[in-house]
Amino acid sequence: MKARILQLLREQEGYVSGQDICRQLSVSRTAVWKAIGQLKEDGYVIEAVQNKGYHLLEAPDVVTEAEILSRLHTAWAGHPTVFLEKTDSTNNEAKRRAEAGAAHGTLVVAELQEAGKGRRGRCWTSPGGTGIWMTLLLKPDFSPSQASMLTLVAAMAVADGIGRATGLDAGIKWPNDLVIGGKKVCGILTEMSAEPDYINHVVIGIGINANIEEFPEELSERATSLFLESGKRVCRAEVIARVWEAFEKYYEEFLKTADLSPLKEVYESRLLNMDQAVCVLDPKGEWKGIARGIDENGRLLVEPENGKRIKTVDSGEVSVRGVYGYV
Amino acid sequence: MKARILQLLREQEGYVSGQDICRQLSVSRTAVWKAIGQLKEDGYVIEAVQNKGYHLLEAPDVVTEAEILSRLHTAWAGHPTVFLEKTDSTNNEAKRRAEAGAAHGTLVVAELQEAGKGRRGRCWTSPGGTGIWMTLLLKPDFSPSQASMLTLVAAMAVADGIGRATGLDAGIKWPNDLVIGGKKVCGILTEMSAEPDYINHVVIGIGINANIEEFPEELSERATSLFLESGKRVCRAEVIARVWEAFEKYYEEFLKTADLSPLKEVYESRLLNMDQAVCVLDPKGEWKGIARGIDENGRLLVEPENGKRIKTVDSGEVSVRGVYGYV
Repeated sequence: MKARILQLLREQEGYVSGQDICRQLSVSRTAVWKAIGQLKEDGYVIEAVQNKGYHLLEAPDVVTEAEILSRLHTAWAGHPTVFLEKTDSTNNEAKRRAEAGAAHGTLVVAELQEAGKGRRGRCWTSPGGTGIWMTLLLKPDFSPSQASMLTLVAAMAVADGIGRATGLDAGIKWPNDLVIGGKKVCGILTEMSAEPDYINHVVIGIGINANIEEFPEELSERATSLFLESGKRVCRAEVIARVWEAFEKYYEEFLKTADLSPLKEVYESRLLNMDQAVCVLDPKGEWKGIARGIDENGRLLVEPENGKRIKTVDSGEVSVRGVYGYV
Repeated sequence: MKARILQLLREQEGYVSGQDICRQLSVSRTAVWKAIGQLKEDGYVIEAVQNKGYHLLEAPDVVTEAEILSRLHTAWAGHPTVFLEKTDSTNNEAKRRAEAGAAHGTLVVAELQEAGKGRRGRCWTSPGGTGIWMTLLLKPDFSPSQASMLTLVAAMAVADGIGRATGLDAGIKWPNDLVIGGKKVCGILTEMSAEPDYINHVVIGIGINANIEEFPEELSERATSLFLESGKRVCRAEVIARVWEAFEKYYEEFLKTADLSPLKEVYESRLLNMDQAVCVLDPKGEWKGIARGIDENGRLLVEPENGKRIKTVDSGEVSVRGVYGYV
């Protein structure tokens, strides 16, 4: 209800009459009046003028259900959206909800993560009020071996979403780090619960450094934020909405073949490693080469320095270190 | 402590003196006396004779930590063992404990499962007092794509364990159903929590119809129990111990190559589908052939009826229906 009213106020130039809102939402005048009051309490500045109606003057930078849903144009991604003031980690929260029967497409967003997780159980700093910490729950039909490709699909979606919401050009460091100006702006943690031939659920956790104004010195060489790169505060709910709109579109493409062949070209256009030197940390010995793109399963294609034929590099077997600056 | 005392009483012919127990366990006479008292309360019949010591006359058919650990000879599988009177499902319990930091090798055993799970979220009936409902937690170093093979390793271990504890000859229906006399006696549900290139944990849930005396009519054609097949009640803790001893041995073999090549021969010697007609339910169309064993990744090798070359069948893509009786 609050989301629908916000949406109406945003879509309309000028004023929206209370009567129009009642009609479009099929609710009473009193219900509209109450919801407007709640929105004001939530920090929205809404002007009400006799005989003209309501006009949204200012919205707070919040990531509540209402704020996100009022901007989100998707069929299933983000429906429902669940907002929490704080949680241990949005991935853990989404996993618990999955076990309890939450639907495919459920989005969990938290203002604050008390135990945000990076890859392989590492810590991820998730301050409140300035970041985007969210997880999408998926219950796909394809096989567990195909799930690892979703992390590349998500990386593309975040790059698109950031671009549309802020105009910033984010590149992808294979497989799924988002980088602006040589520094990391977003991390993605995909986790799966599966039987050998059946996916229980997949959670895609996305942490975006949105309005963070300063990083601790040890991180400032490697990390940046949308605020630092664009010089202005971004609307987090807008970034969130654009990310999941892009994700839903790419995911539907992905489903057609259950591999990345329809998305390979777009992914590669975002790939910072493309035609760049990479250092492959193979357990059998480190070697250097030039990245030449990805195959349809999302593995990196690397042309070895010694001129031997192109090898496919699996993120499970190796780490790729860019030899051109950032890690 | 109770487990160690039970172990001493079992290993010794005749009587074990209280003094011997004190010395071997480095505990006081009073502590031994208390533990013996607790064991009696738990249903153990222990004779105590002045100047001779203790003698175990009778043990109840329980699956407590003490009873299992007093029989278990493993380095890590089943250490620790956690016994619960009841839980929703031992897989869920093990997963929760994994998230909370439980160790590789933790075994969860329940007398009763209130929401036992079969494959793909199906129900599994788990009555109390007569079955073996247990889950082993693993935190392996290998890649998520290799985890599905563990379910075949577990099937071999259960076949071995049943054989050693009861003398019954259980065969494997690919990939992981245990069958005696054409009827299913055990189901295995392997689940994994993973990132694309990293396993958080694997849980291997095993449900064995041990001392179940009767099945509902709709199941009796397809299901059997160790009791029904052997004509006598089995000691459940003994079956449990033999299963995890076999598992630990096979698992160590598996780790050498991180595939099934060292175990293929033993697996195939247990494989009921071997050289038998199978019907492959390929989504592109059903076809028939003869099973010729497994490859090193645990896929079934099937020689098509039409004489074309052998195909590998993945449990993710197809179901295999035996055309020779049981499902």
